[in-house]
Amino acid sequence: MNSPSAHPNNYPYRNEPTWSKSEKVIARRAFDAALGRELHEVTQKAKQMANEIQQSSDLWDLEHYLTQRRKEIDRKYDYRYSRLTDVFGRLLYESRLKEQELRGLDDDKLKSIRSIAKFLAEEAA
Amino acid sequence: MNSPSAHPNNYPYRNEPTWSKSEKVIARRAFDAALGRELHEVTQKAKQMANEIQQSSDLWDLEHYLTQRRKEIDRKYDYRYSRLTDVFGRLLYESRLKEQELRGLDDDKLKSIRSIAKFLAEEAA
Repeated sequence: MNSPSAHPNNYPYRNEPTWSKSEKVIARRAFDAALGRELHEVTQKAKQMANEIQQSSDLWDLEHYLTQRRKEIDRKYDYRYSRLTDVFGRLLYESRLKEQELRGLDDDKLKSIRSIAKFLAEEAA
Repeated sequence: MNSPSAHPNNYPYRNEPTWSKSEKVIARRAFDAALGRELHEVTQKAKQMANEIQQSSDLWDLEHYLTQRRKEIDRKYDYRYSRLTDVFGRLLYESRLKEQELRGLDDDKLKSIRSIAKFLAEEAA
């Protein structure tokens, strides 16, 4: 029979890599570390903006800053395994993650992540 | 001819009081003073909340607080002469304005303002 296999390459979805148990541990740690650093950055900036409020427009600038950053963070930190190489590619491009934090992921994943980081850098150039 | 006058009682709209030049000066000063105090209060609270941020939920609590207060202030401080007795009534009820700051407005306006403040107090009781 020539009917295509439901799992032609053992992946549950086409082109979606599987994540081993040890890779999941690495991924979760790297993801949480980057998110923690970004939240720390927003916190420091918010404290600074709050301290420097002089007039009502500064107050609403702070609100606007927080709203924008919350939306951006919600969009960016998407911990679905189907999205994770894209997420890490972006975090690498934004220097929110060091490549060494991803050490232990398989080579194909690291290649994809680097490709995405490179693509984003070229797009922004 | 019995057709109704366009201005039956010299008011541009039914039941809408006119504001003399001197009343407008008093109204503007009282309005700006109350708004300034409320913005100062929000600023102090925002600075305090920012200083006390420990975790990301505190950050988004600050954003939420600012959004709510901005909307509330936008809704409350409506400087249209057709709305101003209601606005002052609410500010009086909220103790954001002292009655003496309205001294110089005519008695009918002061009565309306007091009535609204009393109504709101009874509603909240």
